[in-house]
Amino acid sequence: MAAPAFPTDHVAPVDAYMGAQPLTPVAPSQTRTAAEEARTLVAQGKMAALATTSEDGTPWASAVLYAALEDGTPILCLSTLAEHGRNLTREPRASLMIGEAEPAGDPLDSGRVTLAGRVEALTGEAEAVAKEAYKAASPASGLYGGFGDFTYYALRVERVRWVGGYGRMDSADAASYHAAEADPTAKGAAYAIKHLNEDHAQNLLDMARALGGHPDATEATCSAIDRYGLNLNVQTPRGFTTTRIAFAETANRAGDLRGATVELARRARGE
Amino acid sequence: MAAPAFPTDHVAPVDAYMGAQPLTPVAPSQTRTAAEEARTLVAQGKMAALATTSEDGTPWASAVLYAALEDGTPILCLSTLAEHGRNLTREPRASLMIGEAEPAGDPLDSGRVTLAGRVEALTGEAEAVAKEAYKAASPASGLYGGFGDFTYYALRVERVRWVGGYGRMDSADAASYHAAEADPTAKGAAYAIKHLNEDHAQNLLDMARALGGHPDATEATCSAIDRYGLNLNVQTPRGFTTTRIAFAETANRAGDLRGATVELARRARGE
Repeated sequence: MAAPAFPTDHVAPVDAYMGAQPLTPVAPSQTRTAAEEARTLVAQGKMAALATTSEDGTPWASAVLYAALEDGTPILCLSTLAEHGRNLTREPRASLMIGEAEPAGDPLDSGRVTLAGRVEALTGEAEAVAKEAYKAASPASGLYGGFGDFTYYALRVERVRWVGGYGRMDSADAASYHAAEADPTAKGAAYAIKHLNEDHAQNLLDMARALGGHPDATEATCSAIDRYGLNLNVQTPRGFTTTRIAFAETANRAGDLRGATVELARRARGE
Repeated sequence: MAAPAFPTDHVAPVDAYMGAQPLTPVAPSQTRTAAEEARTLVAQGKMAALATTSEDGTPWASAVLYAALEDGTPILCLSTLAEHGRNLTREPRASLMIGEAEPAGDPLDSGRVTLAGRVEALTGEAEAVAKEAYKAASPASGLYGGFGDFTYYALRVERVRWVGGYGRMDSADAASYHAAEADPTAKGAAYAIKHLNEDHAQNLLDMARALGGHPDATEATCSAIDRYGLNLNVQTPRGFTTTRIAFAETANRAGDLRGATVELARRARGE
């Protein structure tokens, strides 16, 4: 086998990421798949970066607004007065990058996804459906979307690359992407994290000690929450670390985060 | 002469943009050049979208953090573990799109700029300077920026395309871009707009009537402010319109907006 052309892991000092190791067992926990992460980002966003290919071959990054159909297919509405619109009439290959709506902290440690494929100009019933979806995302398109220089496109997704932050990333194919569901709890996640950290510090510490593998934890804050569980940042006398706590049941509706965390808090207290 | 391949203006109803026309003369007003707009956006940002070309020829959009050298040259720090890093080892042509840090209202009516050119891997003194600039933008790069799979690049800008919002856009070449200055008042602009609209409605109305060409204005709000002047949204019995009011003198320092608007308010009152 030939040597890979590029390194397959960071060429980094071996101890770069070592945190305190768990002292007690931690229940296995599901995390969102790359396809679910992608659908979640696409569902919450509005603006995206589009990459097309300019006449001289230069890849061209521009800002666009997008809408998404029910299966996650992105809809664009672009003018041939703009370079990206002209580019797509020559070369339909394109990709769309969507980031978190409200990234906090180190921006490189926030989620983003690239959807790559080919755009297809829409006509007839498909165009009418796309127009409706797009109008919800851009009310002003009721005017400009009817101009003769604008075309409605669907991006036919061929591959998906998700980056969750430092060291968290994965790929998905088109079938997994379209079949996946956006996390229904994502919209309430920022509020839930704030609420847990401001009003439930003791509950989080109980979770880190009883369920998170760190019985000697001195402090715990929630850094992320999703339909399957939550992530904690944990301080111990052995150093800083992180752990993940699984919900007893998947949170399937927007309002289910509260019940799922209350159950965790009770279990962590031994109730 | 051959017909142009694309329309050169929107194929739109002729009355799509008609607002109330000024009734009295309005003093000519300078606006920021495309190069100044570009430098201003680059100076206020941190995250950007990078377009590179993937192995199969698909243009690839990804999220990156950038720093800027004093002449506006963007610095990137990318890993060959990421698709964009691998892409640039094959094809140095790339572009970077930077949007407003805090867009308000219709996102398509906010500023963004695309810088297109070629990346150059940096070594020696140029790399040391780039590392310092990048570390200010990403403190975490003190760790990951030293990993063997990361390369520091300068994007050698060849052309610049600025879009200010609906109907406001222009191009600049590399020399104009590097020679231009970021607007020193840009950081305070959002606060100034809020302050003018909340506490100085009468002053804005005076400006619209006495200086903005609409003596019958019934309401005026500030929609934008920069070193050369401010934009007003104006209601009149003849309909809605916009106007621009020039400062007596260019605001050359961050703190100069206040004095410049006070002077306008006095002049509008006839003092």
